[in-house]
Amino acid sequence: MNTGTATAIERRLLAEQLRRTRQLTEQLAEPLAPEDQVVQSMDDVSPTKWHRAHTTWFFETFVLGPHRPGYEPVDPAYDYLFNSYYEQVGPRYPRPDRGLISRPTCDQVADYRRAVDEALAGLIADADADTFTAIAPLIELGVHHEQQHQELLLMDIKHVLSCNPTKPAYRSFGSDGVHVIAPSLGWVDVDPGEGIIEVGHAGSGFAYDNETPRHRTLLRPFRIADRLVTAGEWLAFMDDGGYERPELWLSEGWASVQSDGWDAPLYWQRDGDSWTVFTLRGLERLDVHAPVVHVSLFEADAYARWAGARLPSEAEWEHIASVAGAGDQPNDLSTGLLHPSTAVAARGSGVRQLDGDVWEWTSSPYGPYPGFRPPPGAIGEYNGKFMCNQMVLRGGSCVTPAGHTRPTYRNFFPPGARWAFSGLRLATDA
Amino acid sequence: MNTGTATAIERRLLAEQLRRTRQLTEQLAEPLAPEDQVVQSMDDVSPTKWHRAHTTWFFETFVLGPHRPGYEPVDPAYDYLFNSYYEQVGPRYPRPDRGLISRPTCDQVADYRRAVDEALAGLIADADADTFTAIAPLIELGVHHEQQHQELLLMDIKHVLSCNPTKPAYRSFGSDGVHVIAPSLGWVDVDPGEGIIEVGHAGSGFAYDNETPRHRTLLRPFRIADRLVTAGEWLAFMDDGGYERPELWLSEGWASVQSDGWDAPLYWQRDGDSWTVFTLRGLERLDVHAPVVHVSLFEADAYARWAGARLPSEAEWEHIASVAGAGDQPNDLSTGLLHPSTAVAARGSGVRQLDGDVWEWTSSPYGPYPGFRPPPGAIGEYNGKFMCNQMVLRGGSCVTPAGHTRPTYRNFFPPGARWAFSGLRLATDA
Amino acid sequence: MNTGTATAIERRLLAEQLRRTRQLTEQLAEPLAPEDQVVQSMDDVSPTKWHRAHTTWFFETFVLGPHRPGYEPVDPAYDYLFNSYYEQVGPRYPRPDRGLISRPTCDQVADYRRAVDEALAGLIADADADTFTAIAPLIELGVHHEQQHQELLLMDIKHVLSCNPTKPAYRSFGSDGVHVIAPSLGWVDVDPGEGIIEVGHAGSGFAYDNETPRHRTLLRPFRIADRLVTAGEWLAFMDDGGYERPELWLSEGWASVQSDGWDAPLYWQRDGDSWTVFTLRGLERLDVHAPVVHVSLFEADAYARWAGARLPSEAEWEHIASVAGAGDQPNDLSTGLLHPSTAVAARGSGVRQLDGDVWEWTSSPYGPYPGFRPPPGAIGEYNGKFMCNQMVLRGGSCVTPAGHTRPTYRNFFPPGARWAFSGLRLATDA
Amino acid sequence: MNTGTATAIERRLLAEQLRRTRQLTEQLAEPLAPEDQVVQSMDDVSPTKWHRAHTTWFFETFVLGPHRPGYEPVDPAYDYLFNSYYEQVGPRYPRPDRGLISRPTCDQVADYRRAVDEALAGLIADADADTFTAIAPLIELGVHHEQQHQELLLMDIKHVLSCNPTKPAYRSFGSDGVHVIAPSLGWVDVDPGEGIIEVGHAGSGFAYDNETPRHRTLLRPFRIADRLVTAGEWLAFMDDGGYERPELWLSEGWASVQSDGWDAPLYWQRDGDSWTVFTLRGLERLDVHAPVVHVSLFEADAYARWAGARLPSEAEWEHIASVAGAGDQPNDLSTGLLHPSTAVAARGSGVRQLDGDVWEWTSSPYGPYPGFRPPPGAIGEYNGKFMCNQMVLRGGSCVTPAGHTRPTYRNFFPPGARWAFSGLRLATDA
Repeated sequence: MNTGTATAIERRLLAEQLRRTRQLTEQLAEPLAPEDQVVQSMDDVSPTKWHRAHTTWFFETFVLGPHRPGYEPVDPAYDYLFNSYYEQVGPRYPRPDRGLISRPTCDQVADYRRAVDEALAGLIADADADTFTAIAPLIELGVHHEQQHQELLLMDIKHVLSCNPTKPAYRSFGSDGVHVIAPSLGWVDVDPGEGIIEVGHAGSGFAYDNETPRHRTLLRPFRIADRLVTAGEWLAFMDDGGYERPELWLSEGWASVQSDGWDAPLYWQRDGDSWTVFTLRGLERLDVHAPVVHVSLFEADAYARWAGARLPSEAEWEHIASVAGAGDQPNDLSTGLLHPSTAVAARGSGVRQLDGDVWEWTSSPYGPYPGFRPPPGAIGEYNGKFMCNQMVLRGGSCVTPAGHTRPTYRNFFPPGARWAFSGLRLATDA
Repeated sequence: MNTGTATAIERRLLAEQLRRTRQLTEQLAEPLAPEDQVVQSMDDVSPTKWHRAHTTWFFETFVLGPHRPGYEPVDPAYDYLFNSYYEQVGPRYPRPDRGLISRPTCDQVADYRRAVDEALAGLIADADADTFTAIAPLIELGVHHEQQHQELLLMDIKHVLSCNPTKPAYRSFGSDGVHVIAPSLGWVDVDPGEGIIEVGHAGSGFAYDNETPRHRTLLRPFRIADRLVTAGEWLAFMDDGGYERPELWLSEGWASVQSDGWDAPLYWQRDGDSWTVFTLRGLERLDVHAPVVHVSLFEADAYARWAGARLPSEAEWEHIASVAGAGDQPNDLSTGLLHPSTAVAARGSGVRQLDGDVWEWTSSPYGPYPGFRPPPGAIGEYNGKFMCNQMVLRGGSCVTPAGHTRPTYRNFFPPGARWAFSGLRLATDA
Repeated sequence: MNTGTATAIERRLLAEQLRRTRQLTEQLAEPLAPEDQVVQSMDDVSPTKWHRAHTTWFFETFVLGPHRPGYEPVDPAYDYLFNSYYEQVGPRYPRPDRGLISRPTCDQVADYRRAVDEALAGLIADADADTFTAIAPLIELGVHHEQQHQELLLMDIKHVLSCNPTKPAYRSFGSDGVHVIAPSLGWVDVDPGEGIIEVGHAGSGFAYDNETPRHRTLLRPFRIADRLVTAGEWLAFMDDGGYERPELWLSEGWASVQSDGWDAPLYWQRDGDSWTVFTLRGLERLDVHAPVVHVSLFEADAYARWAGARLPSEAEWEHIASVAGAGDQPNDLSTGLLHPSTAVAARGSGVRQLDGDVWEWTSSPYGPYPGFRPPPGAIGEYNGKFMCNQMVLRGGSCVTPAGHTRPTYRNFFPPGARWAFSGLRLATDA
Repeated sequence: MNTGTATAIERRLLAEQLRRTRQLTEQLAEPLAPEDQVVQSMDDVSPTKWHRAHTTWFFETFVLGPHRPGYEPVDPAYDYLFNSYYEQVGPRYPRPDRGLISRPTCDQVADYRRAVDEALAGLIADADADTFTAIAPLIELGVHHEQQHQELLLMDIKHVLSCNPTKPAYRSFGSDGVHVIAPSLGWVDVDPGEGIIEVGHAGSGFAYDNETPRHRTLLRPFRIADRLVTAGEWLAFMDDGGYERPELWLSEGWASVQSDGWDAPLYWQRDGDSWTVFTLRGLERLDVHAPVVHVSLFEADAYARWAGARLPSEAEWEHIASVAGAGDQPNDLSTGLLHPSTAVAARGSGVRQLDGDVWEWTSSPYGPYPGFRPPPGAIGEYNGKFMCNQMVLRGGSCVTPAGHTRPTYRNFFPPGARWAFSGLRLATDA
């Protein structure tokens, strides 16, 4: 995180980064009616207006409250309503009931955002040097926090809109006529030599605590697929009884198949002999060349077993991503496609789609790196306390804000979650 | 129900009755933000915009569809979304999920209402005599159906708003400073002589099927209280351990006390040593002279046992109501108070508050009158199929549309329901 | 209840009645392994050894404790374990967990029973006159209480055994080869003249509090079927889509059909094109001439609607039963058949099967008779507190102990219950 | 697993190992009444007689059926009833309903066991050389499988007996008067030099598939406690608000604290100012010097955080265990203590209590070792399919059969499980 003497330029840059991030959130909410912004369609989902308010509460609680002398909260009730999970900050409104709260309205939330934005701008401009040194890393964290919620907002509103029998589009998108053909699957051999490599974040750029400390780990030679698994390949798995063969599944995954009636990825719906998918662009014909998306770890793992392969570990993934280097423009939120797109061009190492398109499930349970220590205080609840019963995903997706991820970035979800833009890439032992 | 030759005056009257009823619904929704109109705060509650759409669907389904040649539904999806419980009409959207539906928006629902209103106005004006004879009773039923939903809309939005920690008022209402003092409780002796009286609807005025047929029943001499039980009297019950003494309760009621933590009526909240109540006018100090409201049958029954009395049967209630005759202006929806008010003036027989203020729980399970037959077809599902595990309430409440009830009117709710404007009046054997 | 001077004969008679009843309970448990006696197969079911202990606890708590000087409870823990629902006696073990209790074992329960039997015998023999006057009605109540539990024990163990995939018989019963043919259904017209009749218990014989006071009620002319509905008639209902036509069902009943997958009475299982039924005698071929049994009120009501009839009210039933008078030997527990049997001989009025075979659902919600008052103290919890959300059944069944019922006897279950030996008889308006 | 030419001695040894294991199971059930053996006190628990039957079914299904020509199953229904989770073997009885099954009785299960024992003895004696080569490893697996169920049987019956308000002892055990004082906690520094060590099973002795393949892994220097955490130390954690401070807990763990009301280890009960514990020897005063037991991973993790330490990884644990070498006689099932006992004597490396007493939670999620492959067929479901949402425990407990574990042994439970004999040992980074 940033520290050091606060020059005017630093202040301007931070203010601008903050402004653009805050603006993007409001732009993402723009296509939505107030009615859309209230609904919580399942416990995991939060209403749009809650995301807009919670990201604002974060700045109010961790920046303005402690560091802006005389700051008065916009509304004392918001502290209770918009605390997500910070136990040390105080009691909070029960998560599964976020959809019962009609007030503050969307307009009131917009007012809340404006008031906090102004106070933040004032604080950045006026803070003395020590205060600026203290708030700069918190504001940077707040920016990254809000970027995460931008992705969550899109994941969540997709689920909300899918509950409408009329299947409205979040944003319409021209024709879905032409489908690019996916290249055939290739494999890249990776031999880490001695076997000891380094993973994790180092250096002065921003990273979350869970990416640190950078540390040595042991890799064995492995092979990794040069692109993501496609929807067409997933259809072959389904045609081969993938959802009906318990021997392919983890025990808990098979229990989900049966109790939840899984027989295809989330948002797929059968339409006679073919399939349509609900996307943020509305209902579309299934594009068999595009990466499969909205599958759980359980499904990804079963697919890999069926394919005679396995999922990569997060260390394997990070190793190949750091070796392969940055590719072309990834299909992230900035492309506006809002859906994964077909692999096209080879990159440096020949491994495609490492960033953008879909989050890639890995075989790694989400845990602390050796020597990990969360920061003190409530901010320390950010990542560490979730390190149980979750699996790591890597790479970013088509709804991840541009520049939000990096090769060391660790996303995580429970193995049964399907509403993230999650897909997979195959690996095998060498 | 009305039949007979359709004169122009009849058509005008019907059109006007319809217009006023439809308009009132929209007026009731007016104080609400779109965000308020989406929320379903518990399974029993429906969102405001659902009420607005469902009452419209009722006319579309039972009047326009069958009787307006060439009528095209405004949106085919609405048939699935806005059917409440008519099994014979087709599949319907699951009731507990009504709060997940953000579309159609409130504005689209307003459009839907306007389109149906216009088609209905056209049909009333243009229908040939036979068609008018067929539709007039259906439209009259639709009007009464919509009036019921006006009360439900207010019951439901009260529950929705109460979930907001900020406890917003549905409509603000000046000061709650001066409280009228309730008259002391008096008793009226009723001796039905031979014992056989008649109850139930007769004559040409509108009534629901469940009020018929008018029939003989046997009454024994009884005494009935001349006003409703007040909040202050309820406090005495609470102070005497009313919610802690199982011997006062029906077994199922006691189970609810324990599992749901009942220790006061719904919407009461302790504020140090005193009590406040959430009303449609916002949070108010408890008025001990006003009738207690939002108690379940279980609570009403326990209170009566504690008081050495019992609840009246519905026949007893109807008998005294028909003898007492119409009183002064009742405190129904037309007064705009939106909350029960203190008993003031004695009426004809000396029995006060028989209509308006609160629905009065009776000791009568809701069942068919001897010889009851529901009308054929889906309309027949209106009342009969609910005749099990519900109890009858009589009298109307402060949110009942003016003129919607009559002495023979039978309202009904499960014995554990509390979100209706329900209270009680005591009775005893002579 | 019995009072008066206690002669030696009275004491002997009471002791003998008690002895026989207590003995019968143990005989009913005899065919069961200890393993069978522990299981609670659903919340409504109690383990056999619990029934054996609870009926013993009843005598200990209400007779020995208060009336036997110096009586020490056999085990203080039993008070907590074997109190069924008497809130005023103290805390009690949660009902749904009765199947988790392995101790006391069956043998220890037998010891408990013997100890209490001896103390009771001693008390009856030695009590002074006043004490005997006090305990005699309590012992009589205890005897009737235990008889009710004898029927419950059989209902419950039937359910328990049905959970064993091997479907073991409670008691084997020779061949089920020959089926008597049921007489065709006849109707009896009943005209109660003026319309006012009397129902309810009067006189010195034993009755539960809920059968009192005897009181006047109003009847209209009606017709009643001269025998029970048969399994074969039920098959016709099923073949006509009875379980698939919502218009036949009460709303709550239809919800049960869908959520619980009802498509036949409880204990029926399809076997290719035919049906078998699980009985206390093991699996048997369905006898189409025997009365249908193990249907809920919801099913009985739907059947009646399908048949163009209705269920009788409890007053109608009691009236015809008192007019018809005692018939031949009923098929109650004393016949040892343990299953309803086909109607054969006409009785006095031509109305058959009024007692024994199956409990007959009536259209009457279970409530207090006018003027009903439960006795003071914990004993008063016996019946009154269940007077809500239950329906009355009349007549006794094939597992009712001989002599336990009478024309005024009111049994009751929730409308969805199916594990009682419940069937139906049709009625119509005249 | 054993292969090679089957000499007479090999056959005798195998037969003897089998006989002793089968006998021990029956000895463990001996103190129990049939009533105890039927109960399933929660979903995770299986009835004793189910364990006795299921271990028998295992031999019938995987050994006798495929390898004993003409073998007829003892009862075809058992295949359905006693399959635990082998999806590839066929449908199976729902796990949460195992407590509803009263038949086969305990005696019938004993017959079942005898019949299978005889058939196995015959097969071992008579099999031709090829068959013996095939069955020997399966029988060895069956023996180890049965040993696991011996521990489960004791864990489960402890939970069952604890549900009896009378808290009966499984086996009584003389006085619990004298408590040995635990030595003060010491730390052992471990420096693995280069950092690469090997873990996992190798060689010809028996091991489960999940212990293979032996592979290299990377360790950093660490410190490990020389004994287990004691109940007295746990009391200090509790006194310091351990169960009330969310900052100590994983998020999911804190949710369990709140929803399940955890405020002490399982089986602890407050008795005024002191504590008693339910053990297999009955209720005892808490021994503060004995290792704490029946804590979840969530509790162990919170304790370690409170103590400024962490849990060891499974590689760290295995490394120290293999270095430390075998100690004195461990407190396993063979001591008959049935409860963990206080650390006493130092062992080779000074690290005590590495085997026996309690299973030690590690920080390692349960997953496949690099290159892991389960065996083909249904037997392959033994371990691999549970590799998700579970945590590894190491070391064996006071109810683990003698000789059943080894340093490479990997036990696993979900992080919220408490009914295993699970405790903890602290570690820190060097």
